[in-house]
Amino acid sequence: MLPKTGFEMDRVLQYHMGWRNEQGEALDTPEGQGKALRPALCLFGCHALGGDWNKALPAAAALEFIHNFSLIHDDIQDGDIERRHRPTVWYLWGPGKALVSGDAMHCLAYQTAMGLKEKGITQERALRVSQSLVESSLAMIEGQCMDLDFENNLTISQNQYLDMIRRKTGALITCSVQIGALLGSEDPSHEEAFIEYGVRLGRIFQVKDDMLGIWGYEHQTGKSAGNDIRRRKKSYPIVYALENARPKARNEMAAIYQKKSLSEGDVENVLAVLEECGARRQAQSLIEAEASSGLRSLEGLPLHAWAKQEAEELIDFLVNREY
Amino acid sequence: MLPKTGFEMDRVLQYHMGWRNEQGEALDTPEGQGKALRPALCLFGCHALGGDWNKALPAAAALEFIHNFSLIHDDIQDGDIERRHRPTVWYLWGPGKALVSGDAMHCLAYQTAMGLKEKGITQERALRVSQSLVESSLAMIEGQCMDLDFENNLTISQNQYLDMIRRKTGALITCSVQIGALLGSEDPSHEEAFIEYGVRLGRIFQVKDDMLGIWGYEHQTGKSAGNDIRRRKKSYPIVYALENARPKARNEMAAIYQKKSLSEGDVENVLAVLEECGARRQAQSLIEAEASSGLRSLEGLPLHAWAKQEAEELIDFLVNREY
Repeated sequence: MLPKTGFEMDRVLQYHMGWRNEQGEALDTPEGQGKALRPALCLFGCHALGGDWNKALPAAAALEFIHNFSLIHDDIQDGDIERRHRPTVWYLWGPGKALVSGDAMHCLAYQTAMGLKEKGITQERALRVSQSLVESSLAMIEGQCMDLDFENNLTISQNQYLDMIRRKTGALITCSVQIGALLGSEDPSHEEAFIEYGVRLGRIFQVKDDMLGIWGYEHQTGKSAGNDIRRRKKSYPIVYALENARPKARNEMAAIYQKKSLSEGDVENVLAVLEECGARRQAQSLIEAEASSGLRSLEGLPLHAWAKQEAEELIDFLVNREY
Repeated sequence: MLPKTGFEMDRVLQYHMGWRNEQGEALDTPEGQGKALRPALCLFGCHALGGDWNKALPAAAALEFIHNFSLIHDDIQDGDIERRHRPTVWYLWGPGKALVSGDAMHCLAYQTAMGLKEKGITQERALRVSQSLVESSLAMIEGQCMDLDFENNLTISQNQYLDMIRRKTGALITCSVQIGALLGSEDPSHEEAFIEYGVRLGRIFQVKDDMLGIWGYEHQTGKSAGNDIRRRKKSYPIVYALENARPKARNEMAAIYQKKSLSEGDVENVLAVLEECGARRQAQSLIEAEASSGLRSLEGLPLHAWAKQEAEELIDFLVNREY
């Protein structure tokens, strides 16, 4: 499915996608694959509105490639040596090769989307899909940049945080359902409703991810519990606590977050502050409120019963997932 | 001209383009700008074939952005702290910010190209331009990847080397004249002739660049003489010498190229080997042969006298440039 680029780079990209092992051997059963959330959303959007999801496949693949390009680059930036229980690309091939491989994956995404023409999609729509992919990719990168800016900032408000994740994670998720709707229906109001639904999904997805980064279990998420605290990530529960914990607890937490590296005792202390100020409860009620809004946004649409049910189950999955 | 992305990233990108200083202040006179070779080639191709070059501006800008995205990432990879007499982006803002800024510039290139629609270019052509940009960008990245693979290889043939630069540098230069021709003429034979011309330009450009990297002068190129030897780059004269020097000289050179870091004496020795085996003469005659072929490829075209003259002067400039 990944177009051939030639040379070792193919092997690197196919390794990252879980289709080859690090020796370059093709795998019968892919390993370390992601949830393929974005392509699923795209195909669902198209199918739910009565379109032929087969025609949306190039766009769905493009979305997954954009997501994976960003993961390859993120892993370099964060110095992560493992993703989905496998060594990361930069760790195996070095940061230089990982940098260009990520760039190649970024190109392949747009190239793949151009395959829409061969699926009988009009040029006007194919161009709109390309434009949406580029714009959401750019928004995602802006979000990554804001996230980097937040690293040395202890006074981020919840609103600033939600604005950042709307770009960093939300943009591509929203784009996924939007493109699906665009390819499945000619009615612009359908596209708008799906955009609204996508914005909610994005927020639920990221805040849940933040919760799992703190309270998740390693064997399920591929990350260790408390991991995001250890790395001093300013995820939603932390931002909430820094805004809402009692002054003494807040100051203690701020001091911990200014350290170069954290002890296990520090991690325990932060976990205690989060518990005390209700950060976990707040995160959970935020995603539940978003879930209700997300479902409401689809109410006016002419969806079949199965599609309504899928849309609900998808939200339920994102709200309750443990990995 | 660079579309707004928001946040500090804009400042970083505009700094790289030479439009702002490192404090983020807008500059009346841009500093450290490149030669803008690719946009010039694109506008020339369009104008030479009787098209309105104004309409090609979004594509011309996109080409320059793709080139600059690759420079931002190259500088991280190579650890270069200076480009065009100014500190590099990663050196000022760190590799993480430079990585995402380069990614953003990559997106902005495709986004800018979509402005062709507003210039009255048909959707079919706008899509072909986007496709060509993505494909040449991918080829460029493949070339970078091959170049990385060559680093630890002392037995690269001239043909392998020429294949690598056809991608790494040639693809985007060829794409520049091709897109110009595509926007300037409806005759596919014109596009083909310009592609052939572009392939020659690309080769001349890179081999000349290789010569300047070894025998250029710092105040003219922004790079110090012998610089590419010091960095053990496998540029064309080196590849030629490793293939053609007498065995003793070849072995000496191979030994030097396997060292972790080179002394000034090593650099002098390599320069002597290059001189002795005629690597400089060979590089010069290669680019002169390419110059003749390049001019021949335009012979059958209905170009005005001014355009023929420009095409010749451009080749002369690339063959003889000192910076």
